[in-house]
Amino acid sequence: MSYRVAVIRGDGIGPELVDSALAVLEAVADVEIVEVRGGAAAYLDQGTALAEADLEVILTADATLKGPVGLPDVRLPDGTEAGLLGGILRNGLDLYANVRPITLLPGVRSALRVDDGIDYVIVRENTEGLYASRGKGVGNSQAMADTLLVTRAGSERIARYAFELASTRQGAPEDGVRRVTCVDKANVLRSMFFFRSVFLEVAAEYPGIEAECVYVDAAAQALVMSPRHFDVIVTESMFGDILSDLGGGTIGGVALCPGGNIGASQAYFEPIHGSAPSIAGQDKANPLSQILATAMMLDHLGAPSAGDRIRAAVRQALSNGSIQLNPDGTTRTRAVTEAVIGALT
Amino acid sequence: MSYRVAVIRGDGIGPELVDSALAVLEAVADVEIVEVRGGAAAYLDQGTALAEADLEVILTADATLKGPVGLPDVRLPDGTEAGLLGGILRNGLDLYANVRPITLLPGVRSALRVDDGIDYVIVRENTEGLYASRGKGVGNSQAMADTLLVTRAGSERIARYAFELASTRQGAPEDGVRRVTCVDKANVLRSMFFFRSVFLEVAAEYPGIEAECVYVDAAAQALVMSPRHFDVIVTESMFGDILSDLGGGTIGGVALCPGGNIGASQAYFEPIHGSAPSIAGQDKANPLSQILATAMMLDHLGAPSAGDRIRAAVRQALSNGSIQLNPDGTTRTRAVTEAVIGALT
Ligand SMILES: CC(C)[C@H](C(=O)O)[C@@H](O)C(=O)O
Ligand SMILES: CC(C)[C@H](C(=O)O)[C@@H](O)C(=O)O
Repeated sequence: MSYRVAVIRGDGIGPELVDSALAVLEAVADVEIVEVRGGAAAYLDQGTALAEADLEVILTADATLKGPVGLPDVRLPDGTEAGLLGGILRNGLDLYANVRPITLLPGVRSALRVDDGIDYVIVRENTEGLYASRGKGVGNSQAMADTLLVTRAGSERIARYAFELASTRQGAPEDGVRRVTCVDKANVLRSMFFFRSVFLEVAAEYPGIEAECVYVDAAAQALVMSPRHFDVIVTESMFGDILSDLGGGTIGGVALCPGGNIGASQAYFEPIHGSAPSIAGQDKANPLSQILATAMMLDHLGAPSAGDRIRAAVRQALSNGSIQLNPDGTTRTRAVTEAVIGALT
Repeated sequence: MSYRVAVIRGDGIGPELVDSALAVLEAVADVEIVEVRGGAAAYLDQGTALAEADLEVILTADATLKGPVGLPDVRLPDGTEAGLLGGILRNGLDLYANVRPITLLPGVRSALRVDDGIDYVIVRENTEGLYASRGKGVGNSQAMADTLLVTRAGSERIARYAFELASTRQGAPEDGVRRVTCVDKANVLRSMFFFRSVFLEVAAEYPGIEAECVYVDAAAQALVMSPRHFDVIVTESMFGDILSDLGGGTIGGVALCPGGNIGASQAYFEPIHGSAPSIAGQDKANPLSQILATAMMLDHLGAPSAGDRIRAAVRQALSNGSIQLNPDGTTRTRAVTEAVIGALT
């Protein structure tokens, strides 16, 4: 089976991460790569972060692999960052589920006093919440306002996605109870009470899965103090942004964290972190997030055994010490790539 | 010097925490206590979480000590929790600075692989941001929307509060650089870009203090991976809610975390956590958050040496083992109280 994969190399460390991931991908699958430009450099050149023709390529590909994009100094007139593709891809293609596994890999030292067993997935709603307002806030020189929008349809489909994922995923929380945790702020915000209510309606359709609701502040504490409690977490977009980086901090850093942006007919896969321009081009960036994003893409393409091969190789290379991660999060990009390819079985 | 202190015992574990804190307070200061009712039980009885006459008492007191309030099942018709006093006190009295020290105390085991040196303060904007919309969202059966409001005046005063605090506070981050970190989401939200812009304007008035800006997701990771970097953090209300519980999780739990809600002419002090109804009345709740809130209140009243005496006693009792905290966060409320009083010098 051959797949047609659109690739956005992105900004900063993006190109070297994508090179690394493509080398691994080509070792496990038969793929046709179609490159498209996207991000802040593209914005500077073209006046748009993604040209129409490139979007067409993405729409006709089987899936898209995206490197980190954005350069903090490249900003729109309103001050928000230009070159981010979230609005164009996540909203534009209605990729409503941002799926972010948080897994402590063997050989990786957690910032927590935990040696293993952190293994949950954050399902971040990806088309509304506070991000409905992305770059659209209204105001003047004295005040500015953004809107957090929660719809029934949006909440229902993301809750259902979370329960379906919980029904099929491997790995279980410490107590062995398959659960979906709704993270909200239903005590203070009506929109978040609405999100919780719809979640509970959907939960009733999945009697075999525990449904629990936790306020976002309590959840932030729990992800630090009892991360092994969690299985699948479903939440609003801004909360999911914060909690997924928090989770990343507990498993060695976001440099190890892949994410998928998945809709009914399109999907793209990426590291959850930024483009780290300060270390770009120095063979220092950790490519594992991009490599693991590639494995998620293969699962999505219906080739989970190829995805499993990549994940097994990453685990193997980490646990036998053939990958060295520096305490500051850097590593040797090409050496890591070779170690993963060398560990493929 | 004698102070008139209004006291709200609150719900759940509130009354026992407040009893504990008052015993410590009376051992170090000459205070006149005036009790007022507030919270979810008060709401059930009176139809309001705080009666007019009780608000009058608060307004004429020198400061207010508040226990945790709220019972998750006591809800307003719109679904948000009834009995929370945030709207009435924080907004009603314009207590714009929610000040939350995050300090790893001696003898307390952090969830992080860190033994000491976590010592920063979160200054949470307390009157606007997403909380401007508290219980006010608009919508219907298909959608609900809340507003995140950032004003110039609100951002300016909270930024100034943070820099003033940084100018005077003791303790320094690991690298010895006095700094204020603005946590925002300026890459995505115009309101947050506005918050950052006003922060940078104010920062220019404090050339001796480093000003840095960090996106909220990156901040969440950094509070886990490099907490010793931070000195004073200033942020929007919802972000501050999440990050302060995250911070609590890194210093033994929110049961150790006090906070002040401070305005131009009024202030109240409280634990940052909830009322934990499930352990109420069992002599199990940790009163240290409430005791440390009392110390903050004394600082605010202009009696910092009394506040210091309490903090020193807490440190002493924790480090000599006369306070035992269970791994699940519980302890023996009265025994902790006696240990703190016994350690006062
Ligand atoms: C770059 C930024 C717009 C993006 C977001 O906030 O969603 C990133 O932080 C992420 O989590 O994918
Ligand atoms: C109880 C709740 C309304 C409150 C808040 O969200 O502000 C609490 O979490 C806090 O942090 O003081």
